Amino acid sequence: MTDAMTDETVTQTQLTSHKPLSEEELAGIDAYWRAANYLSVGQIYLLDNPLLHEPLAPEHIKPRLLGHWGTTPGLNLIYAHMNRLIKQRDLDVIYITGPGHGGPGLVANAYLEGTYSQVYSHITEDEDGLRKLFRQFSFPGGVPSHVAPETPGSIHEGGELGYALVHGYGAIFDNPDLIALTVVGDGEAETGPLAASWHSNKFVDPRRDGAVLPVLHLNGYKIANPTLLARIPEKQLIALMEGYGHKPYIVAGDDPAEVHQAFAAALEQALDDIAQIQRAARSGATSEEPPAWPMIVLRTPKGWTGPKTVDGKQVEGSWRSHQVPLSGTRSDDAHRAELEKWLRSYKPEELFGPDGSLLPELAALAPAGNRRMSANPHANGGLLMRDLRLPDFRDYAVDVTDPATRSSEATKVMGAWLRDVMKANPDNFRLMGPDEVASNRLSPVFEVSDRAWNAERYEEDDHLDPGGQVMEVLSEHLCQGWLEGYNLTGRHGLFTCYEAFIHIIDAMFNQHAKWLKTTSEIPWRRPIPSLNYLLTSHVWRQDHNGFSHQDPGFIDHVVNKKAEVVRVYLPPDANTLLSVTDHCLRSRNYVNVVVAGKQPALNYLSMDEAIAHCTRGLGIWPWASNCEGEPDVVLACAGDIPTLETLAAVDLLRQHLPELKVRVINVVDLMRLQSESEHPHGLSDSEFDALFTKDKPVVFAYHGYPTLIHRLTYRRNNHSNIHVRGYKEEGTTTTPFDMVMLNDLDRFRLAMDVIDRVPALGSSRATLRQKLDDLRIQARAYTREHGEDVPEIANWSWPYSEADSDLGTDPGNDAPSGPDSKEQE
Amino acid sequence: MTDAMTDETVTQTQLTSHKPLSEEELAGIDAYWRAANYLSVGQIYLLDNPLLHEPLAPEHIKPRLLGHWGTTPGLNLIYAHMNRLIKQRDLDVIYITGPGHGGPGLVANAYLEGTYSQVYSHITEDEDGLRKLFRQFSFPGGVPSHVAPETPGSIHEGGELGYALVHGYGAIFDNPDLIALTVVGDGEAETGPLAASWHSNKFVDPRRDGAVLPVLHLNGYKIANPTLLARIPEKQLIALMEGYGHKPYIVAGDDPAEVHQAFAAALEQALDDIAQIQRAARSGATSEEPPAWPMIVLRTPKGWTGPKTVDGKQVEGSWRSHQVPLSGTRSDDAHRAELEKWLRSYKPEELFGPDGSLLPELAALAPAGNRRMSANPHANGGLLMRDLRLPDFRDYAVDVTDPATRSSEATKVMGAWLRDVMKANPDNFRLMGPDEVASNRLSPVFEVSDRAWNAERYEEDDHLDPGGQVMEVLSEHLCQGWLEGYNLTGRHGLFTCYEAFIHIIDAMFNQHAKWLKTTSEIPWRRPIPSLNYLLTSHVWRQDHNGFSHQDPGFIDHVVNKKAEVVRVYLPPDANTLLSVTDHCLRSRNYVNVVVAGKQPALNYLSMDEAIAHCTRGLGIWPWASNCEGEPDVVLACAGDIPTLETLAAVDLLRQHLPELKVRVINVVDLMRLQSESEHPHGLSDSEFDALFTKDKPVVFAYHGYPTLIHRLTYRRNNHSNIHVRGYKEEGTTTTPFDMVMLNDLDRFRLAMDVIDRVPALGSSRATLRQKLDDLRIQARAYTREHGEDVPEIANWSWPYSEADSDLGTDPGNDAPSGPDSKEQE
Repeated sequence: MTDAMTDETVTQTQLTSHKPLSEEELAGIDAYWRAANYLSVGQIYLLDNPLLHEPLAPEHIKPRLLGHWGTTPGLNLIYAHMNRLIKQRDLDVIYITGPGHGGPGLVANAYLEGTYSQVYSHITEDEDGLRKLFRQFSFPGGVPSHVAPETPGSIHEGGELGYALVHGYGAIFDNPDLIALTVVGDGEAETGPLAASWHSNKFVDPRRDGAVLPVLHLNGYKIANPTLLARIPEKQLIALMEGYGHKPYIVAGDDPAEVHQAFAAALEQALDDIAQIQRAARSGATSEEPPAWPMIVLRTPKGWTGPKTVDGKQVEGSWRSHQVPLSGTRSDDAHRAELEKWLRSYKPEELFGPDGSLLPELAALAPAGNRRMSANPHANGGLLMRDLRLPDFRDYAVDVTDPATRSSEATKVMGAWLRDVMKANPDNFRLMGPDEVASNRLSPVFEVSDRAWNAERYEEDDHLDPGGQVMEVLSEHLCQGWLEGYNLTGRHGLFTCYEAFIHIIDAMFNQHAKWLKTTSEIPWRRPIPSLNYLLTSHVWRQDHNGFSHQDPGFIDHVVNKKAEVVRVYLPPDANTLLSVTDHCLRSRNYVNVVVAGKQPALNYLSMDEAIAHCTRGLGIWPWASNCEGEPDVVLACAGDIPTLETLAAVDLLRQHLPELKVRVINVVDLMRLQSESEHPHGLSDSEFDALFTKDKPVVFAYHGYPTLIHRLTYRRNNHSNIHVRGYKEEGTTTTPFDMVMLNDLDRFRLAMDVIDRVPALGSSRATLRQKLDDLRIQARAYTREHGEDVPEIANWSWPYSEADSDLGTDPGNDAPSGPDSKEQE
Repeated sequence: MTDAMTDETVTQTQLTSHKPLSEEELAGIDAYWRAANYLSVGQIYLLDNPLLHEPLAPEHIKPRLLGHWGTTPGLNLIYAHMNRLIKQRDLDVIYITGPGHGGPGLVANAYLEGTYSQVYSHITEDEDGLRKLFRQFSFPGGVPSHVAPETPGSIHEGGELGYALVHGYGAIFDNPDLIALTVVGDGEAETGPLAASWHSNKFVDPRRDGAVLPVLHLNGYKIANPTLLARIPEKQLIALMEGYGHKPYIVAGDDPAEVHQAFAAALEQALDDIAQIQRAARSGATSEEPPAWPMIVLRTPKGWTGPKTVDGKQVEGSWRSHQVPLSGTRSDDAHRAELEKWLRSYKPEELFGPDGSLLPELAALAPAGNRRMSANPHANGGLLMRDLRLPDFRDYAVDVTDPATRSSEATKVMGAWLRDVMKANPDNFRLMGPDEVASNRLSPVFEVSDRAWNAERYEEDDHLDPGGQVMEVLSEHLCQGWLEGYNLTGRHGLFTCYEAFIHIIDAMFNQHAKWLKTTSEIPWRRPIPSLNYLLTSHVWRQDHNGFSHQDPGFIDHVVNKKAEVVRVYLPPDANTLLSVTDHCLRSRNYVNVVVAGKQPALNYLSMDEAIAHCTRGLGIWPWASNCEGEPDVVLACAGDIPTLETLAAVDLLRQHLPELKVRVINVVDLMRLQSESEHPHGLSDSEFDALFTKDKPVVFAYHGYPTLIHRLTYRRNNHSNIHVRGYKEEGTTTTPFDMVMLNDLDRFRLAMDVIDRVPALGSSRATLRQKLDDLRIQARAYTREHGEDVPEIANWSWPYSEADSDLGTDPGNDAPSGPDSKEQE
């Protein structure tokens, strides 16, 4: 640590010697804080008698005391102080509550600002409204205990911990005037995602982005344990924050007046720093090093201003204040008396008028209109959302005259379109990826945008710039969280990820899907852009990596969430990928999962056909089928590799069983398979029967775990005839065709499945079956010997074209190697 | 940053001025390093001509070049240097490779040490063995490109990045003499789990635990991007490491001789520090602050010693060396010549004798026997595994004379047994939890063990001590990773977690399940203790938290993995939980998922009955059924709340339809539902038919998402009659009974389901249905009005007992509140 750096650290002593608040300001801010604290305690405890106009009686107390007090007074303190400076400086600020279980505090502040009564008009600004406000909190039919979608001003529930900072950063990208005041709890700070999030500051461009102001709130305890960051030596804590590239301000204390002054000073200083960094960057000044953004450490007691001890045990300043400090207050007279004393310690009579409304001089301390953090439109992102300017994806189509004869890298084709999407929406679209944008063949985007990077750069670096629209960091958590924050504030994006490793954010997806489900039921919440995933480098092509990189289960995970918010697409080729992605970027309030390969693969559909096919979501491919009427067998497929193997199986069947009537169905929109009662996209039973027949065998080649197809179709008439092949958790170092063989998804096996299931094939069945099995065994032996697939298998294309006899594939269709085909580290 | 701290930092300059290696040592270590590098390049490129006895020809080159060179030379350097000091100091060290795609390096070192030829005897220590070693790497039928289970000495594949440090810490807990040399890649260092892992050092007790020596390897680049930690100012990097509580040593350079000296010095110093810290602690010395454990930053070029440029572009020291620096070497003569030059630059003729074996003077540089990192028994933990001393769980049984009449908190009952498990196995069992051990009612364990905590402690803290066996940190990633490391080195444990948030480690579970699946196919890998989860605070009892804390989908996630390694148990009460947990702690090589409630809930089975029931895995409960022969309807249940609601539904049916023949089946072992062809625990079809009938309606109340039951049973004869109720992603602030009503899993709905499905109930059907629906509507209205459930519903117990008329429940059966019933923050 250099001296220069040490000098920059403003210590607590320096801060408290400066007292920015006048006596009147101090009194005002303290009163406002007491009001918020009073309303917070009231929500946790009271059914009635909200202003204590009567002595507290058992019937005034809720029968079940549910909520969390410990973190709340700190959240309220930070809120009150930010209000002062929003007003003073006319700032545009949203408040992100890492410890979201401090819900009572944020509800209290939204109520004090009048926002709550605006969006929930039955919660009036009077005693009756207070009664309802208190009663509804964590009460059946009421509002959740967390800073959930129901809470005005929230984009972050803070239930599952760890995502406060990433959400803050996501919100301020391309919002140059926005400040995300982000409270990080010291419990949350122990999580992996939060620990990594601090480095987000290297991705902020002070010219085009706003600022995150992190407040690390050290109240010292979690549920039952102390917190790590509260118990390391302060010099270590400062080093850690400086190591993260921040300039920390420390405020610590338990005397409200002193903490008010110190925190006011720290907040002023931090906001000054932000303004200075932005001013310098926007004036065109260049600096050697990226800026050291300010952050504040606030060290105050857990459950501050609550009961100091209960039944002889310390509560304030200990883990015992985490939830409900005084229990049994309905039946226990002593505890109830303690509660009343606690509530009256905030002097509600000095805060609220006789009718129960906040005194005007206190109400005047809050900002007005959209400057209220509870009413900031960024926290209801749909209000600010602008449609994307989308270039016509049809202009990027690959030419397909004969199906399945020429190859493209689907994601690369899509990358060209994405490039122009980015170009047309320079401040309204971001592409996130964990170091895989180029590996996933989306490199055309670098023709118009660099990667966001505000740390040191060298000459050999590839497309780095502080102002890039592409965001790459080797953390799926950051990619996901940034994009969520960006979406929640009304902007659009796409997260491209290795399929296997998207499970890293399973839990974050859950929370976002729950958020979307809930917001769709809240009238004042406006629809936001969908969260879009492009999963590539998928299970079937892990040539460089093998078994540990194979997992197609994210789809299974996603379909557990509410049908109204989830969509899954498996476009088989480049043109369908274009069509699907265009659709996803136009959609709202969904989570769209698109799985598509990046390796050269056959093109099946012209753009017009692709649009029709994607619009249907699934359908018969007549050119691949050899019957117009009722087939003997249906071969269905979903996913690029399963589609390839299915068509090759059809080829085998045509060669060996030309009389067999085969229907080929390709599925792009997986949700079409479900009943219409289960998913809005679901086919009706009659539609399903028309496609899959009521009684013919169906051999279904599926990209992922086979059980999902059964799960989606078990209510269908023909379900007992559906035989599914997919991924079986078998894989190792192998070749593409060997990989599908290992999992019994290969053309030979599919053809054998058909033979096993079609009745009345006569005596030729056994002979043919063995012949196919021989071919299979030979293919395996060839691979083991040569280290690559049998060329006629690897280069297979559809041989039944009538128009064009050139069946060759692109030169790029060989196995990849070298630096141009990089995979996950 | 204080001056004292600054002084502690040993800078690069200081290090390089000290040159610990003699000329001879330097030459030896460099030769050993070159040998490892040569073998690494050989594995990536060569099919034949392994010692370059002939000029390199196209047929000597693999047709597909798959692997990663970039990180490998750094890994090899660290390995060679550690070898020197293992020999010199007789150290017990395992090598954990964060950048696991550097697999060629670890395979090379295992081969150089002779371990590879010991476990794979066909890979001999001669030219033919070298040929096979090279050929098999990332080749069909060969070995993976990562440090996978196939690699001797590995407990960490390093495919999905981020878990190197947690695995290292897990390995050294309770292994006082072990050092986990843990290489952290700078890509990996960007992940959340890794960022949080640094704080693991606060959980190490230098008296009873070994040490992790992290080497942060800054080679500067990921696949296409620079790495964050390589591009922040060095003073920030040092501050960061000091902030994490480490004492960093920096080694940087690109001249091998200089780096050898500097790294040798740093490694000596770091090992001295470790020895000093352990000596001091073990001599009983106390210190004010926890120790500052050493770590090393090694800054060397990516792809070091590889081609400097290729086709005019920088490769060494850039992202272009990540994978295969020279592509097309089979067909491109110039590239092949470059490759030959590169290979010959290591002077293989000075490293290997004419027969292809490593020269004896080089072989002598490696440690011998179990001191070889590739042969360290800790990395094949089953070799060292000791059975747990398990107290007889029957001694902890709750007394159940009449079923479903008295309540217990199942996890608390189990906690008493767990306490004695911990007591009997003080250095062979750890309990992990994200701050939820007490909240999950396992507090009896604190009677015998504290929580591991080696940071500041205060008087009001609850059971903290550096030597605790309970490990609590608010990071599911750390809990999971520590336990994996502990298991992989042959020790036992249990991870208790909120059910919803276990999804945070979905991806880590995947990797571990894949590891177990693979190891079971490797003869020399010995079985290790199972990875055990106790999921509680489950979806149905999120009274304090609501919707964001409800997710039963981990079970769905788990059953996608190989049936041989996954087990799922849903014990309905305290005695069954005891029986199941005992079983799990005795098992090997599985992942066991146990889901059980922590709230007071009815007891159903005496211990003898529980053992029989759990042994069966599922079965008819005769006392709850009213028929011995073929029933009219089967009510099945899995999970504690579904069991309660099912029994209450049976009560309603008995009251209103006494003539209806009802069979009640409870399922503990979910895998019993699957076909025997799908899972080793699966029932045969005849067994299934005998229980669930071939044609009677089955109303199945299930803990999680209903589709899973369909997925497990869709092949069963009676599947079309199985009607499942479970979690539907509906939930909000509510009461326990309101929660089940919201999801249609309540007793009234279940009884109505039966009525809807049993034919020939006559004209009473509609009347009875409406009556039940009325009761349901009344229950909801009561809850909305009073904030708690109808008492006769909340306090329901089984009314048909004959022995004991006391139907009361424990006083603890009330809704929880107050600090004793704390929930997730």
